[in-house]
Amino acid sequence: MRAVCVIGLGLIGGSVLRAASAAGRPVWGSTTSEDDAAAARADGFDAVEIDEALRRAAAEDALIVVATPLTAVRGVLRKIAEHAPEAWLTDVVSVKDPVAAEVRSVLPGARYAGGHPMAGLSSSGWAAGSGELFSGAAWAVTLDEDTSLEAWREAAQLALDCGAQVVPTSAAAHDSAVARISHLPHVFAAVLAATGADGGPLALSLAAGSFRDGTRVAGSSPDLVRAMTEGNRSALLDAVDDALGRLGAARGSLASTGGLKSTVDAGYDARRYLDDLVTSDRTSTTVRLDATAPERLREIGEIGGRVVALTADTAEIEIPTAA
Amino acid sequence: MRAVCVIGLGLIGGSVLRAASAAGRPVWGSTTSEDDAAAARADGFDAVEIDEALRRAAAEDALIVVATPLTAVRGVLRKIAEHAPEAWLTDVVSVKDPVAAEVRSVLPGARYAGGHPMAGLSSSGWAAGSGELFSGAAWAVTLDEDTSLEAWREAAQLALDCGAQVVPTSAAAHDSAVARISHLPHVFAAVLAATGADGGPLALSLAAGSFRDGTRVAGSSPDLVRAMTEGNRSALLDAVDDALGRLGAARGSLASTGGLKSTVDAGYDARRYLDDLVTSDRTSTTVRLDATAPERLREIGEIGGRVVALTADTAEIEIPTAA
Repeated sequence: MRAVCVIGLGLIGGSVLRAASAAGRPVWGSTTSEDDAAAARADGFDAVEIDEALRRAAAEDALIVVATPLTAVRGVLRKIAEHAPEAWLTDVVSVKDPVAAEVRSVLPGARYAGGHPMAGLSSSGWAAGSGELFSGAAWAVTLDEDTSLEAWREAAQLALDCGAQVVPTSAAAHDSAVARISHLPHVFAAVLAATGADGGPLALSLAAGSFRDGTRVAGSSPDLVRAMTEGNRSALLDAVDDALGRLGAARGSLASTGGLKSTVDAGYDARRYLDDLVTSDRTSTTVRLDATAPERLREIGEIGGRVVALTADTAEIEIPTAA
Repeated sequence: MRAVCVIGLGLIGGSVLRAASAAGRPVWGSTTSEDDAAAARADGFDAVEIDEALRRAAAEDALIVVATPLTAVRGVLRKIAEHAPEAWLTDVVSVKDPVAAEVRSVLPGARYAGGHPMAGLSSSGWAAGSGELFSGAAWAVTLDEDTSLEAWREAAQLALDCGAQVVPTSAAAHDSAVARISHLPHVFAAVLAATGADGGPLALSLAAGSFRDGTRVAGSSPDLVRAMTEGNRSALLDAVDDALGRLGAARGSLASTGGLKSTVDAGYDARRYLDDLVTSDRTSTTVRLDATAPERLREIGEIGGRVVALTADTAEIEIPTAA
């Protein structure tokens, strides 16, 4: 099994290190956080200085996983260029086009496919992580025109080893999708929390489930939230504009007719569709990993399908019948 | 202990019936839903025809609890006017000014104080309820210029018997507050769910905690959501306008500078304040239930205080020190 070198040992990177180790893969990592490094070592993991970690990755032909905030990615890639310019490479940053652009610029020889596990917590750091964080979760692995199927396969195998299911997608389609289902929810949570708090202690004293749920992720680290939302500016602007349009329509309807039927019904139908997709039966299919595989895999991602296993020359797929 | 007659045996009314019974009070109820009536009877409760329920309430000088959707309140009040025009009366509807206006118009002789337990689920009906639903929850009990302290005390005692803590407030202040922390969250959840679903199966396949939490209440019964949001039109418009302003500012900032610092920081601070209020130490105080009590109790509600017990002539208060 290919060794795994994780750069960044916070919530996500630390969980990848644990999960890959539990899957039987040789693992080591590096982090600029003294606290995370000490905590990882206390848990029995190998946390070393970054140059040493990358030299070892080159020597063992390991898969390098960049698990830092987006703002730190360029610096890490430069280090990789120095020590392991043709490394197997993936990342777990929440936007994919900006990372891919940095890789093209700094590490053109890397065998890279981007990744994004859809699991998180409002807490952060090594201590918040666990080897089970990704169990059953979706994990996007990007497949663009310049992605080699071998690099995609390495990143996808890591996701599967961590207990996740792989959603194949292009970087651009990923970024548009997460703008809607991850970054917009963070903006909404922040706006809702602030608008609620403007009602003062009386309002917050009356706050129950709907407000607590709707504002939970507003308690996430502001630096991490800014890194991911600001890093996906263009796609997030589209999503915010759509949301502003819908919220403005609700406002207009409430002011003019007093009714919110279309807003409420559309939200109910959308949430029901989400629940149906989660609980739906699945049909299984197989994709041969040949020259036509990238296009076919992206299509499968578009309709909600996921890769649940890889064999020597196939990807095993499940697609919700409700999609 | 004063008997309790609950009209409407859905999630909230059914839970009030169970909780009041568990507190040792004689209880009976009525509902237009055959299913809820049969389920209540199967659980050993007395669910009778509405005229019979109200005649019995008059005979026993019971506290009548209106637990129907807002749209059905007027019809129920007319029935009460027929059978028990001077009844002890409260309600558990999610808006208070519209109910108070109906009571003034239809039942001027009733000894009324409005109520609103801040507990709910996205499921509905008798079967979804429980006697523990209100345990530790806030329960607003309104105290307006025309509310008698005796009527407020009866409604407040019911809330305490159900395991809740009483938030004293005016109907108008309540409606402004819940617009922000209950009705706006429902509108936000609907808008977020629809905007996310516009991203198609790929987006929903990638949806994780932030989207699930932010859209959970979009799965609530559309009729109930419309009844409560549309019933609080004026206060909700203010809240939606504030939210539109904040979301528009976020959009502008993201488009111009690329930054979301003020949005993210304001949301983080607001959510931290909410968490601080919940976990805060509390100071205890006592309010004598005399002529100055209504104003003093409303002030206590404004600063996040709650009534945790009533004695013969005092209300025992707890106020979070973080407020």
